[in-house]
Amino acid sequence: MEQPPRPPITRDLARYAVQARYADLPAQVQTEAVRAFLNWFGCVLGGCHELPVEIAVAAALDAGGAPQSSIIGHGARTDRATAAYLNCFSSSLHAFDDTHLATVTHPTGPVAAGLLAFAETAPISGRDFLAALVIGMELECRMSDVLLLPPAQANLSLYITGVTGPIGAAAALGRVLDLDLPRMTWAISLAAAQASGLRATHGSMTGLLVPALAARNGVAAALLAARGFSCSENILEAANGFVDTFAAGADFTRATAGLGTHFEMLSNAYKPYPAGIVIHAAIDACLDIAARITPGDRPADVGVTVHPLTLTLTNRPAPATALQAMISLQHWVAAALLHGEAGLAEMRQDCIDDPDIAALRAAITVVGDAALRRDEAIATVTTTAGVRLQAHIAHASGGAKRPMSDAALDAKFIAQAQRVVASRKAEALLKVLRGIADHDDVARAIHDVLES
Amino acid sequence: MEQPPRPPITRDLARYAVQARYADLPAQVQTEAVRAFLNWFGCVLGGCHELPVEIAVAAALDAGGAPQSSIIGHGARTDRATAAYLNCFSSSLHAFDDTHLATVTHPTGPVAAGLLAFAETAPISGRDFLAALVIGMELECRMSDVLLLPPAQANLSLYITGVTGPIGAAAALGRVLDLDLPRMTWAISLAAAQASGLRATHGSMTGLLVPALAARNGVAAALLAARGFSCSENILEAANGFVDTFAAGADFTRATAGLGTHFEMLSNAYKPYPAGIVIHAAIDACLDIAARITPGDRPADVGVTVHPLTLTLTNRPAPATALQAMISLQHWVAAALLHGEAGLAEMRQDCIDDPDIAALRAAITVVGDAALRRDEAIATVTTTAGVRLQAHIAHASGGAKRPMSDAALDAKFIAQAQRVVASRKAEALLKVLRGIADHDDVARAIHDVLES
Repeated sequence: MEQPPRPPITRDLARYAVQARYADLPAQVQTEAVRAFLNWFGCVLGGCHELPVEIAVAAALDAGGAPQSSIIGHGARTDRATAAYLNCFSSSLHAFDDTHLATVTHPTGPVAAGLLAFAETAPISGRDFLAALVIGMELECRMSDVLLLPPAQANLSLYITGVTGPIGAAAALGRVLDLDLPRMTWAISLAAAQASGLRATHGSMTGLLVPALAARNGVAAALLAARGFSCSENILEAANGFVDTFAAGADFTRATAGLGTHFEMLSNAYKPYPAGIVIHAAIDACLDIAARITPGDRPADVGVTVHPLTLTLTNRPAPATALQAMISLQHWVAAALLHGEAGLAEMRQDCIDDPDIAALRAAITVVGDAALRRDEAIATVTTTAGVRLQAHIAHASGGAKRPMSDAALDAKFIAQAQRVVASRKAEALLKVLRGIADHDDVARAIHDVLES
Repeated sequence: MEQPPRPPITRDLARYAVQARYADLPAQVQTEAVRAFLNWFGCVLGGCHELPVEIAVAAALDAGGAPQSSIIGHGARTDRATAAYLNCFSSSLHAFDDTHLATVTHPTGPVAAGLLAFAETAPISGRDFLAALVIGMELECRMSDVLLLPPAQANLSLYITGVTGPIGAAAALGRVLDLDLPRMTWAISLAAAQASGLRATHGSMTGLLVPALAARNGVAAALLAARGFSCSENILEAANGFVDTFAAGADFTRATAGLGTHFEMLSNAYKPYPAGIVIHAAIDACLDIAARITPGDRPADVGVTVHPLTLTLTNRPAPATALQAMISLQHWVAAALLHGEAGLAEMRQDCIDDPDIAALRAAITVVGDAALRRDEAIATVTTTAGVRLQAHIAHASGGAKRPMSDAALDAKFIAQAQRVVASRKAEALLKVLRGIADHDDVARAIHDVLES
C-alpha cells in the first residue's frame, strides 16, 4: 500500500521554535509556564541533597567543566550541559516533578534545567525564558503524543522523557541562542538522534537519571548546532527516522496540529504528594478525614477502596526504605491520617520507622474495586472514640480535573526549599519565581536570592 | 505461548568482564587486538583535523573539562569522557575505521577511545589495556549479534555502534577500573540504558558522531558505577529491557555462547581504502592494472563490472565534494588508475577537481552484474598505446577472505599519521603500537612519542 507523503514536521517544529515569542502566547500559557518553572525549581531544591545526586555531582566535579553554571544546592559550578544534567537530576529525584498525563512525559525538567544553566552565561529576560520553556515543552509533549497516542503503536519499553526530552531541551536552547532555521533544525535533529532511556531501569538510581541525560544531550546538541555542526533536515519524519524507530503507525500531524494556538503544556499536572501517582486519591481522602478528627481522638479502624491497579502497584503494608514507602499505599494512608500531612517529611526514615505509623499501616483494610476510576478513592475511618468518618474523592488533586492551586504550589515550593535554605530565603525565592516574567535577567534574579 | 526463561546474560557478560585476563586470551586474539588498536589510532591521526572534529573540539574546549586526557592532534586536554568522545570522533571521520562485517558495528572506536583516555589518568600496562579492549569489543560485537543476526528481527533504523558501543566502552573501562561484579553489572546497564543513534543521520556530520557519543556515554557510565551509582541487574535480558526494545525474537544465547573461547573480534575487518566498502573490489582491480601500465602509457578506455548494489549506492560520475567522492565508484576507479594509489590523497579536493581525473571518470563504462558477489569486481582497460589489461578480484582486500597484512596496516597507519606528525615520529609511534603489549604504561609510551 502506498504511504501518504509525510508532513515536514522537523522543519515546521523548527520554524515554530525560531519564530514563537512571549507576546504571542495566550495569558493562560504564560501563567502555566510560571507554575511549571516554580514547581520544577522547588523539586530541584527538594532533591538536590539526596545520595544519587551527591554521587553524580562528585563524578561531575571530578570531570571538571568550566565554571559556567551553578549546581544548585552544592555551591559549585560546572559547564552548562553538565549543570543542566545535575539540576534536572535533582528535580527528578523524588518523582515529585510534573507529568504530561496523556503520555507520562515529565516535560519541564530537561527544558528548564537547560535554560537555567544557559541563562547564567547569557542574560535572558523572564519573558524570553518563559517563551523558550513553552517552546521546549510543546515540542517535547507533542512528539510524545506522536509516539504514544492512537493510532501509534509505540515501543512501551522506552522511557519517554529520555526519548523526547532532548528535543525539547535543544529547541528551547536554540531559541535563546537565537539560532536560524537550518541550525535550529540541526539542533532538534542532533537531539533526536540521542533519544534513549529504558523503563527497565526503574527502581534503580538510573531510572531517575534518564531526564537528566535528556537535558545534557539536548543542551549539547544546541551548542554544537550553533557552531554549524550539521544533522538531517527531516529526521523526525524520514523513513526509518526518529518516529519510525520508536513507534509504528504514528499520526505525524499530532506534532504540528494547532501549533501556536493549542498548547499541550496546559495539560501538564503537578504532584501534591511525593508518592506514586495512583496513591494520590487515597491520600486526598485521608487528609480530608484527618482534618475532621477531634484533637485527642485517633483513627482505630481504617478501610480504603481504590482501583485495583493501585493495589497491584502499591500494596505494601511494611515498607522499609524511602523508595518502598514512596509506593506504599498503606504508608501514605497511615501517615496522612496520623500527621495530617503528606509531604517530604512523611518519606523520611524516622516517619517510615515510627511505631505508631507502622502499627496503623498493618491495620488498614485495602480493597480493590474496578468500578472506581484510577484517580478515585474512598476512605472510611472509625476512631477510638467511636466516630465514623468517610471521604470519597472522585478525582485526585493535581490532575486536570482538580489542578493544584497557586497556593498549594507555593506551599509545596516552600516545603521543598526549606530543606536547603532558610524560610526567609525560600519566601524571597518564591516571590522572584512568581514574578519571573518581569525580571530582565532570570539567572541573576534567582542567584541573587540563593547567594544572599 | 510460554516464553522460555531467558539466560542471565547481563550478569554472565559482567562476570566475564570482571574475570578475563590477557594471559587467558589465545595468541591470535592478542595479536588481533594490537592490529585493531593500531588501525584505530591511525584513523584518529588521519581524521583529527577535519572540520567536524574542529567544531566538536571547539565546543568541548568551551565547556572546559579537567585536563585529564589528551585530545589527540589538538595539543589540549579535557576530562576523560570528553577526550574519549573527541578521539573516537576523529577515528570515525573518514569512515576508515574497522567493521565487524556480520553486523556493520565499528567495534574498536568507543572501546579504545575510552581506554586510552582513562589510561592517561591511571597507568595501564599494554597487556591489561589489550585485555580490556578485547572484553569491550567482544561484548559490543556479541550484543550486536544478538540484535541483528537470525532469528532476531532487528530495528534497522538504529545505528548499531551507538546501541552496543556504550556497553563495550563501559565494560572495558570497568575492567581497568577493577570493578566488582555488582558495579560491573551497573556499568553495563547504565551504558545499555543510553543506547541511541539513528541511521537517518547518515550523510551529515552527526552520522559520523554516533560512535563518539557511544564512547562518552560508556565511559561516563563506568565512572558513575564505580562510585556506587546503581542500575538494573538484568537490563539486557529483562522483559521490555535492552534486547526487547531494539529487536524481536532475539537469540539471547548469542551473547555468551563460547565466551572466552570463541572471539567475535577475530571477524573484525580493516579498510585498505577510505572509500565506501562496496567499491573496494573495483579499487583492488584498478590498482592491479595500474601497476602493469607501462610508464608513459595511459588508460584510454575503461570498463568496470560490479555487483548491482555497488551501482545503486555509488554510481556517481561527477562528485564535487569529498563526501560525494568517498562514495563515487567512478572517482576511485579513475584515481586508482591514474595515481596507482587509493588513499587519503585521493579524497582531497585537488584530486577531485583534477581535470585528468574528471575526464577519465566521465569515460568509464560501469556495468552491474548480479552474478558477481558483493566483494567481487572485474576491470578492463585499454591504454592509449592499445594494450588491453584486465583484472578480476574474487574477494576485496580487507575482508575476512583477504585480511589486510601487517605491512598494509602499517602503511595505512604511516599515511594517516603523516597528516599530523613528521615521518620520523610516525615510524616511532608505529613501533610503540606494534610493541604495545610489552609497555608498562600505554598512555605514557604513546604520548612520549607524540610530544617528543
